Amino acid sequence: MYAVILAGGGGTRLWPLSRRARPKPFLPLLGEQSLFQLTLARIAPLMPPEDVHVVADQRHLPLVTQQAPQLIGRKLIGEPFGRNTAAAVALAALVIERPATDVMVVLPADHWIADEAGFRNALMVAARAAEDGSLVTLGIAPQGPETGYGYIVGTSDDDAGNSGRRVARFVEKPDREGATELLASPGGAWWNAGIFVWRRDALLASLERHAPAILGGIRRGLDNGQSLTTIYESLPDISIDRALMEPASLQGEVKVVPADVGWSDLGSWNALHGELAKRQAAQAGVVAIGAAQDLDSRDILVHSSGGRLVVTVGLADTIVVDTPDVVLVCAADRAQDVRAIVDRLTQAKETDYL
Amino acid sequence: MYAVILAGGGGTRLWPLSRRARPKPFLPLLGEQSLFQLTLARIAPLMPPEDVHVVADQRHLPLVTQQAPQLIGRKLIGEPFGRNTAAAVALAALVIERPATDVMVVLPADHWIADEAGFRNALMVAARAAEDGSLVTLGIAPQGPETGYGYIVGTSDDDAGNSGRRVARFVEKPDREGATELLASPGGAWWNAGIFVWRRDALLASLERHAPAILGGIRRGLDNGQSLTTIYESLPDISIDRALMEPASLQGEVKVVPADVGWSDLGSWNALHGELAKRQAAQAGVVAIGAAQDLDSRDILVHSSGGRLVVTVGLADTIVVDTPDVVLVCAADRAQDVRAIVDRLTQAKETDYL
Repeated sequence: MYAVILAGGGGTRLWPLSRRARPKPFLPLLGEQSLFQLTLARIAPLMPPEDVHVVADQRHLPLVTQQAPQLIGRKLIGEPFGRNTAAAVALAALVIERPATDVMVVLPADHWIADEAGFRNALMVAARAAEDGSLVTLGIAPQGPETGYGYIVGTSDDDAGNSGRRVARFVEKPDREGATELLASPGGAWWNAGIFVWRRDALLASLERHAPAILGGIRRGLDNGQSLTTIYESLPDISIDRALMEPASLQGEVKVVPADVGWSDLGSWNALHGELAKRQAAQAGVVAIGAAQDLDSRDILVHSSGGRLVVTVGLADTIVVDTPDVVLVCAADRAQDVRAIVDRLTQAKETDYL
Repeated sequence: MYAVILAGGGGTRLWPLSRRARPKPFLPLLGEQSLFQLTLARIAPLMPPEDVHVVADQRHLPLVTQQAPQLIGRKLIGEPFGRNTAAAVALAALVIERPATDVMVVLPADHWIADEAGFRNALMVAARAAEDGSLVTLGIAPQGPETGYGYIVGTSDDDAGNSGRRVARFVEKPDREGATELLASPGGAWWNAGIFVWRRDALLASLERHAPAILGGIRRGLDNGQSLTTIYESLPDISIDRALMEPASLQGEVKVVPADVGWSDLGSWNALHGELAKRQAAQAGVVAIGAAQDLDSRDILVHSSGGRLVVTVGLADTIVVDTPDVVLVCAADRAQDVRAIVDRLTQAKETDYL
């Protein structure tokens, strides 16, 4: 078993804390360690450091080795720019030379998992389920009809128990009604966390069938001595879910292993607020990181890393993020729209703030 | 006519912008000039700089001459610490040597007045009204039954026209019901802005009658060569309204000259928000001072003087104040409670933030 950690996420919805120079995976959002470090620690009991590989923006490789000195001298893959997860996974499948039947675990580096032992158990189950050449994905027990996640839908005529359930289809982020219907699927439905387990040869064969342009483009480029920049520029910007898992699931090649492990993608300030409120047993939902004083607020997150005192009075359902050069104050129900601010700054070429 | 400008106000409700080292009068809250500078400019057409005197905390005298170089070498009165307005006015009455019948105008340095010409006209009317030895106060046309102001109540059997209306009594900050009743007074009711006009001899005589301990304490101390610190320590902490105007009004010694001049005491972030929204013709009540970006907020004030970008998303009725070392985010209807935060920091001896 070996791991490929995808540390390329931008985390723009956690701006202004998450920046181009230090994006979400490399931030200590839930304590002392960054999400990337937590991801490494989570799998450390399963494999030695030499079996852990990281795909990240090449500008972030110094952060990778700074936060994980045990990876110095290991195979780290620096991307010239992000080209979504299909390119990253295919590249890792090709350049990390392992025996054909070795099992590759693909892990995003920007998620939170509360139950680490449960998570490792799920990975071991998934590894067994992958022995027959299936593409295996962990299925997160849904907490409700959320519209922000992709869904994995199981087949109703299959009960493989410990070896995973056959997947009928993947569904991109549905609307509320669609999500509610999915939860009632007879074969079960799970959130797609982007955690995949497969034999290397099975992955390469499936990529060959379902995403030949991506696999072939990288392979030919590498054979011809092209730079990764040149190779990446020719690749489509597409997720591994869409490029591989969706078509493969329709061919019966995919299994899901349920994992009720306290997962969160920390996908917004709201999600982070929820996790921190749980961990800190927050009074009235008031969560403060850093120097903060509050009077009579409820359900607020104050994140102060700018070295200043943040004072809140009488607020409700509000996010306050203080950084050295930007202060964000955001209504909790608008936390998704932080991305729109980042887009606006990008268009205005306000790169200092990005 | 000569002016005594009281620049001792702490302005704690405008914390964290207003600080001990640079309190409210010395802040450019409404444009380029500080409220103190605006106060000077407002009366400049009425008198030359040599007739303008300032009472301020002695630590702020450098700010006074920095902001008003024309006052260098003039009579500036530095208080060792604040002892409220009765002490400041009595001290000024004694140490600024002027002929007995000269008219003294007392002006707070931390208010805003939109109609400067109207204000000067009201002062001239008040000066005439003071010629008979009355203590004269400007009466601000009430905008509603506000509970945050003192009220001046006129006598119903007097119509002095241009020479001012006789005052029946002063009322300290009433409750809502009391304020509503006051507004229906047959003799009229006005907000007390702490702007007074009187002959020097009339003031000294009235102080002798109604506040002999204060006047006598200062006079004896000065005669005996005591330090102002020693003198001030012996004085009661009481306003000129309470020490002089209330008892004098009961003796028929006080007149009010109505002044509908666009006055605001800028007494809280909310009040400042209101003034700025009027001046800037703000869209959806969104007022921004300094570097700020907003998405879909309404009725917010963003005051950025910390050199950072302040980003607001989806807020309503909120005050955001960014300074170099403190960020305040406050529900608009809790703006009065900023004072409670200052009290808490004072008790915790967090003097860096005060």
